[in-house]
Amino acid sequence: MDSISVSEVTVIGRTHLGFMHSFRQPFSGVPMSPKFCYSRVEGPRAISSSDTNTTSQFAYGERTAATNSDLGYKINGVNLKSRTLISSVKERLLLDANDDAYGGVIVDHEKLPSNPYAFASILRASLSDWRRKGKKGVWLKLPVEQSEFVPIAIKEGFEYHHAEKGYVMLTYWIPEEEPSMLPANASHQVGVGGFVLNQHKEVLVVQEKYCAPSITGLWKLPTGFINESEEIFSGAVREVKEETGVDTEFSEVIAFRHAHNVAFEKSDLFFICMLRPLSDKITIDSLEIEAAKWMPLVEFVEQPMIREDKMFKRVIEICEARLSHRYCGLSPHRLVSTFDGKPSSLYYNVVDDDHDPSNYCNTDFL
Amino acid sequence: MDSISVSEVTVIGRTHLGFMHSFRQPFSGVPMSPKFCYSRVEGPRAISSSDTNTTSQFAYGERTAATNSDLGYKINGVNLKSRTLISSVKERLLLDANDDAYGGVIVDHEKLPSNPYAFASILRASLSDWRRKGKKGVWLKLPVEQSEFVPIAIKEGFEYHHAEKGYVMLTYWIPEEEPSMLPANASHQVGVGGFVLNQHKEVLVVQEKYCAPSITGLWKLPTGFINESEEIFSGAVREVKEETGVDTEFSEVIAFRHAHNVAFEKSDLFFICMLRPLSDKITIDSLEIEAAKWMPLVEFVEQPMIREDKMFKRVIEICEARLSHRYCGLSPHRLVSTFDGKPSSLYYNVVDDDHDPSNYCNTDFL
Repeated sequence: MDSISVSEVTVIGRTHLGFMHSFRQPFSGVPMSPKFCYSRVEGPRAISSSDTNTTSQFAYGERTAATNSDLGYKINGVNLKSRTLISSVKERLLLDANDDAYGGVIVDHEKLPSNPYAFASILRASLSDWRRKGKKGVWLKLPVEQSEFVPIAIKEGFEYHHAEKGYVMLTYWIPEEEPSMLPANASHQVGVGGFVLNQHKEVLVVQEKYCAPSITGLWKLPTGFINESEEIFSGAVREVKEETGVDTEFSEVIAFRHAHNVAFEKSDLFFICMLRPLSDKITIDSLEIEAAKWMPLVEFVEQPMIREDKMFKRVIEICEARLSHRYCGLSPHRLVSTFDGKPSSLYYNVVDDDHDPSNYCNTDFL
Repeated sequence: MDSISVSEVTVIGRTHLGFMHSFRQPFSGVPMSPKFCYSRVEGPRAISSSDTNTTSQFAYGERTAATNSDLGYKINGVNLKSRTLISSVKERLLLDANDDAYGGVIVDHEKLPSNPYAFASILRASLSDWRRKGKKGVWLKLPVEQSEFVPIAIKEGFEYHHAEKGYVMLTYWIPEEEPSMLPANASHQVGVGGFVLNQHKEVLVVQEKYCAPSITGLWKLPTGFINESEEIFSGAVREVKEETGVDTEFSEVIAFRHAHNVAFEKSDLFFICMLRPLSDKITIDSLEIEAAKWMPLVEFVEQPMIREDKMFKRVIEICEARLSHRYCGLSPHRLVSTFDGKPSSLYYNVVDDDHDPSNYCNTDFL
């Protein structure tokens, strides 16, 4: 096998098209079923090896000629597989990246340069290279350890997309003559509220410590955000327990509200849940809660702030309808899908093959 | 009124406790009704002036004595209101910030220093000051124009919380002996799928261009993510229109799926929606869609990938149950709440005061 000097090549790598054959999301490692493939605004998915031609793609270095058989090299002085791929032309450094399914690239965040100055020049070179190749969107995930690269990428024209503890994701849309097709980070916060009624037709209510003085004294349902990776059905139970000390069992989602431009300028999904009480004793979380009690339902709905608020009044009407079996909510069912091979929760109404029309909702709430 | 030289004071400002009397979220400008106050994990809310004592808080400078009446100064040589507040002790610079409702602070991102070096020392001094005052969580929103401050804040111990186009939010938990009470960024992406059935009992299905080769040929429902600030009911209609060219009218959310650790390691809420067709002609979006057609429902459910997937099989069963009136989904109702004074969408089942048990779901789908 021929060998050539690679002193001009400081780093050589290989794009990893081949290992994407299982359609794993590059960032989550979760295989994705196309049944739940979200078109158009799906985010980066790497394509499979069978979708690509077998032309070699080299993460580092330009080549003057390419063959279909050269897939790997070693660095600095080690023999190469073929001399036709590396000429004496000086090699530039490029970022290691994988193609996504939409003509874009996903930068391999585990193979970023360690040096910010090197990153700046390599990023610029990579953008030129991607532009030349007709690539579209670029996804650049920067771990917190490489926060110094953030202003560098921003300066090159990248934009923030989203962030989680541990990383920030930036994007870049290359084609200047086309509007960006990159999916927006249209993320939602998710909250739950618990409607807990006991056998005395009393509803569990709280007064919060930190609310507008103008509504001091309002008794409301316990509410809160669900935690990361938490289920709605367990988040509702947890919130009620934390705020009031009362144990409950999740019954149904009876309604949900969708609102936009709330905290952090995000959209909000709030699920109103019916829970069955399993205990009676109240112990409040004094950090957030001023007081809590079991209040007769009739008294609860008569509060002016409830009566005069269309949204909240309707929520309570729905809860009351559910109690008299004129309404059925959505119950969670744990099912596994080939979507990700893991269980997820499907919330739906009871589907009763032998449905008896005289029993609108055959699940007793109390 | 006494006056003193302020040559040692380079910048003076004032925290804006007073202007938070309307309980506006500092980042969204949206007043928040406590009925939907999410406890504990709500995120930063500025407290009202009535919640605070009237001790002056100065954004810049330490003081050797404080009074309740001194609320403002001017810079560099202009007379001050009182000499008791500024002594000859050298003033340090601190970030302008407002208290939140949980013992933390929200840095005013509109009053950040312009210079990264100044920011570094001011940030450090501010952290010391907040620590000394017993503050807990710190929220630092950095606009994209100040991306150079990101690595500085990270180096001081800040963490990424979330980001949107235009800014990144970082947080810092000060008390070392207490676990962080800062709410996680438990954000969700939201997708919709459209179940569209015509009068011939044919369902509108698509084959996507970019899916695993192993399921090439699978006919699925049109699906997609909703856009920023988009309603579920309009997102579903839009997706179907974009992918197939068919006009539809939203009917109901019949079920939703909640999954964790999907794209971008986020959680996912997917709403399965029933839509009524308003047109018949199919024109596909050739960018993403390989083909689309009206397929007999019986044929659709017989596809092996559908039949063998528990999750998807259940979804189709629910759709079929809805067709035979054995099921009622959740319909959107636009209601205004004092929560934010804007309309939001409340999805719930039909609440019928004169419910006739023989008509389980009195809305005809077809």
